[in-house]
Amino acid sequence: MKQETIKKLESRGVKIKDLVPILYDLQKPYIPELTMDQCEESILAVLDKRDIQHTILTGIALDELAEKGMLDEPLLSILRQDDGLYGIDEILALGMGTLYGTIGSTNFGYLDKVKPGIIKKLDTTPERVNTFLDDLVCGLVAAAASRLAHRNKDLKELNIKQSTD
Amino acid sequence: MKQETIKKLESRGVKIKDLVPILYDLQKPYIPELTMDQCEESILAVLDKRDIQHTILTGIALDELAEKGMLDEPLLSILRQDDGLYGIDEILALGMGTLYGTIGSTNFGYLDKVKPGIIKKLDTTPERVNTFLDDLVCGLVAAAASRLAHRNKDLKELNIKQSTD
Amino acid sequence: MKQETIKKLESRGVKIKDLVPILYDLQKPYIPELTMDQCEESILAVLDKRDIQHTILTGIALDELAEKGMLDEPLLSILRQDDGLYGIDEILALGMGTLYGTIGSTNFGYLDKVKPGIIKKLDTTPERVNTFLDDLVCGLVAAAASRLAHRNKDLKELNIKQSTD
Amino acid sequence: MKQETIKKLESRGVKIKDLVPILYDLQKPYIPELTMDQCEESILAVLDKRDIQHTILTGIALDELAEKGMLDEPLLSILRQDDGLYGIDEILALGMGTLYGTIGSTNFGYLDKVKPGIIKKLDTTPERVNTFLDDLVCGLVAAAASRLAHRNKDLKELNIKQSTD
Repeated sequence: MKQETIKKLESRGVKIKDLVPILYDLQKPYIPELTMDQCEESILAVLDKRDIQHTILTGIALDELAEKGMLDEPLLSILRQDDGLYGIDEILALGMGTLYGTIGSTNFGYLDKVKPGIIKKLDTTPERVNTFLDDLVCGLVAAAASRLAHRNKDLKELNIKQSTD
Repeated sequence: MKQETIKKLESRGVKIKDLVPILYDLQKPYIPELTMDQCEESILAVLDKRDIQHTILTGIALDELAEKGMLDEPLLSILRQDDGLYGIDEILALGMGTLYGTIGSTNFGYLDKVKPGIIKKLDTTPERVNTFLDDLVCGLVAAAASRLAHRNKDLKELNIKQSTD
Repeated sequence: MKQETIKKLESRGVKIKDLVPILYDLQKPYIPELTMDQCEESILAVLDKRDIQHTILTGIALDELAEKGMLDEPLLSILRQDDGLYGIDEILALGMGTLYGTIGSTNFGYLDKVKPGIIKKLDTTPERVNTFLDDLVCGLVAAAASRLAHRNKDLKELNIKQSTD
Repeated sequence: MKQETIKKLESRGVKIKDLVPILYDLQKPYIPELTMDQCEESILAVLDKRDIQHTILTGIALDELAEKGMLDEPLLSILRQDDGLYGIDEILALGMGTLYGTIGSTNFGYLDKVKPGIIKKLDTTPERVNTFLDDLVCGLVAAAASRLAHRNKDLKELNIKQSTD
């Protein structure tokens, strides 16, 4: 299911490569020795999680169905206008962001507000409905950031066992 | 949007009247003077909340689209089989359940596991996809239970102001 | 308990007046007609909620006990150093932030990362342990922001009933 | 920190051995080949997680401080009476329960309501303040249950890689 999830993200205009620098900028201040490769590895590892795959596939399905007009009103208009008070996209993405620890919530909220790089572009693609997609991407990067932070600490504690669970 | 939400629930086989006794049994041990009318009033008050309406409409939309085969694989099969590891229905319903305070999480989890009354029926209607619906109903009743518990305490504290916010 | 909560915040260096401009800056872009008075009113209304009071009192108690050295190790050192991987402060504050709807999570994460005004000061007061306090303040302002956003929409919908629940 | 966490649980009357049968009864219906050893292994693996350790140490600290009367009012009385509307214990434990996926929320809520085995005993030990402890134990077992469920599915999918992340 991991490959279907990555393909689905790409079909909506999101390449893992686009997320790597966002994650790098987010964690570099805390992990000076961080590399782009480690960021890519962490995003791919997060995508192994069944909950992450389910969340991305479900959120994108709702975007696609809204785009095709295949949802009933009033939900259709809410998703098409990305109603600021519709919080289901946030709740799904937050669930991803905290799967590697609650510190993910801070990174999720920050990314969702600041919308760096590709995230901003997703949020402002008029011909597309990306109500869920931009939040999903924030949640994915936030989860990868939490994972990096915990693993970095684990390594420092020379406690590899911990990091394999 | 409240009326659309109630109509949508009814179109999926859930009447508010079916939820009243579930809420009553859940809270009666803590509020001896509780009446069925207060339970119905509390469920209807919870349905006034925009987040509750959004969650119910979104979850039911996914059930309906899965029923009609209008979702891509692997999501379609996951929802049709109500895969026990698919947690998006829980995360949405839990978001409802905790909107009136974190004690809602206990009632949500309990209802989702024990599945009293209509909830069990929803979970075992073969010709229908109710992957989200049964959890949404648990979340709705859990939210109404939290609201009742807090209001009961508020009244005891003769602090009506508190209960109107 | 509301007054005890406000007093406790003040005893830790947080005046409601300090939070008003933070909330104002956060919501002004979405509510052009927003006033400082409405921001103060919203923060005070959020402080009426039992869950908000409980969270603030619990988090500040942990800060105070860490400050006095009355916690066992390793928790004492974790709180005194504000270990970046300690997420209990975030989880408590996030619970506050989402009590008025899941959109609160975005504002919480943003505030917790950017730390405007008093929040930055709290996070960098060496002689004090404010591991929980800065997150609690972010959660409180985020909750007040969600409340303002929902009420603003409610008023637009001329649906006062909704806003009193 | 794992050993300190296990010691702290034992000092409050909770042995890992007491939790094994609760987890076994919870997951046996879904994993027929489940053994007691696998349950113990899963609980110990969950205790490797930094977030789990932090949550348990923080919650127990609040119980101990309440027991010793070292908290200010009104928090002291709230914890000593285990006020049913105090939801901080639930929010902390729920954070543990969902660390291995959102399905943990159902098991947490169920355990917290039904209180099997040692959990009931903790909730009714008059001379002790266990306001947090019983919820923490529910959250720990719920997390271990989610982990078992996901690993069981992973193994079925012959996807070991997935289970080591």
